[in-house]
Amino acid sequence: MSARASEAQLAEARAARAAFRGGAVAPTSGVAHGLVQANLIAVPADWAFETLLFAQRNPKPCPVLEVLEAGRTESSLAPGSDLRTDLPAYRIWRDGELAEETTDASAAWEEHPDLVSFLIGCSFTFEAGLADAGIPIRHQELGRNVPMYRTSVDCAPAGRLRGELVVSMRPIPAARVADAVAISGRFPAVHGAPVHVGDPASLGIADLGAPDFGDAPELRDGELPVFWACGVTPQAAIMTSRPPFALTHAPGHMLITDVPDAAYAL
Amino acid sequence: MSARASEAQLAEARAARAAFRGGAVAPTSGVAHGLVQANLIAVPADWAFETLLFAQRNPKPCPVLEVLEAGRTESSLAPGSDLRTDLPAYRIWRDGELAEETTDASAAWEEHPDLVSFLIGCSFTFEAGLADAGIPIRHQELGRNVPMYRTSVDCAPAGRLRGELVVSMRPIPAARVADAVAISGRFPAVHGAPVHVGDPASLGIADLGAPDFGDAPELRDGELPVFWACGVTPQAAIMTSRPPFALTHAPGHMLITDVPDAAYAL
Repeated sequence: MSARASEAQLAEARAARAAFRGGAVAPTSGVAHGLVQANLIAVPADWAFETLLFAQRNPKPCPVLEVLEAGRTESSLAPGSDLRTDLPAYRIWRDGELAEETTDASAAWEEHPDLVSFLIGCSFTFEAGLADAGIPIRHQELGRNVPMYRTSVDCAPAGRLRGELVVSMRPIPAARVADAVAISGRFPAVHGAPVHVGDPASLGIADLGAPDFGDAPELRDGELPVFWACGVTPQAAIMTSRPPFALTHAPGHMLITDVPDAAYAL
Repeated sequence: MSARASEAQLAEARAARAAFRGGAVAPTSGVAHGLVQANLIAVPADWAFETLLFAQRNPKPCPVLEVLEAGRTESSLAPGSDLRTDLPAYRIWRDGELAEETTDASAAWEEHPDLVSFLIGCSFTFEAGLADAGIPIRHQELGRNVPMYRTSVDCAPAGRLRGELVVSMRPIPAARVADAVAISGRFPAVHGAPVHVGDPASLGIADLGAPDFGDAPELRDGELPVFWACGVTPQAAIMTSRPPFALTHAPGHMLITDVPDAAYAL
């Protein structure tokens, strides 16, 4: 990773983490432009192997950026960070049910001191590349969260963990679809190229207007819905597989790291 | 993986596995030209998470092609295969010491029915690409095993597992080094581009003529030693970290799969 973040970028990342630590809540798309953002899933140690194996078998939705061993809470991607507090919003899952949404997850580590944390690449990372190429990022323009959908595509199971692929969707002008594929394809560590272009029904998505996570999209004339594998996929696996306990970020509410996007570009 | 192996390739792979199952012993470099070969490491289930994490943190020496969950012995990369018998030679490790070399590892699964097996990419895979480009593969020409060296470069540790990088070495004519880099770089899932070109001392290798694994090389005038990350790295981690039990392939004696190299090319 020879690419380096600018001082201005780092200051914005640190300020954002501090604000979230202080209780601020907002989707992180567009925050600290050009720095990598990460999905979080944390499980007790006896589920760690299956979680890592699930990610290894499903690298497109679950590209692992970092694994923090049992009890660790400072990401090496963001020195000084604290995973317990520095994301804007968290979800606590019990037996596969959403039990609580919170802005401070410290209690999760008190309850399970052996939590193993996985940071998973996020498509917000390549949004900077799309924006730099003049491709509109509709949910940012509208100040909304990106729409995400559970699909009918099964992930490869791993032990007790199984579930379907979750995708994020961005409306892309037809003339820019190829560019969006090429630009995001340069970032395999953060979901890479789209998994699907243009036909929601074949992914089992009945209604684009009713995403399972995030906010409703706005598709305009001449735009195609383009679908990327999404780091919320582990949350769908939790809902399907029902482990006794899991902690995740709230969809769209990521860890902002100090690592520039370019560090993960081919 | 749209690439498909030819019937002739598959027949050669099956015949090789059958011969090894019958007790034949030989290094596998050059066998079943154009099909992927794999390193093996198998550990009891309570070491599985750390082994997978070690691989995830050291993807260059330890690119995971497949994980077989506890007790499973048929690789999906080679239907009909049996990991207990189909490699030409195995090593049994106890407390980090080489306890036994054998051509049949069935007893390991009887002793540890919960063995989790990891198949790791092998640089033999891209040798076909080098050979097709007219780059000499010296150890094949000489009918020897590739030379492999423990280096002074530490891998990223994972829990109880730590150890140094192991590299394989091929003498490459100076005029072809760039080609060898480009060709192997197209195969990141099987170690990819070299980690080092031309200066063994800076890797902590004192004597190229005395490899830690495999056979001595023959370097000719105008050739540079070129070093690739090697799937024997987990064996060095076993020697350093001393888990109570582990099973590996014998260096250079791989699982031959039914999957064409092209399936792992960018």
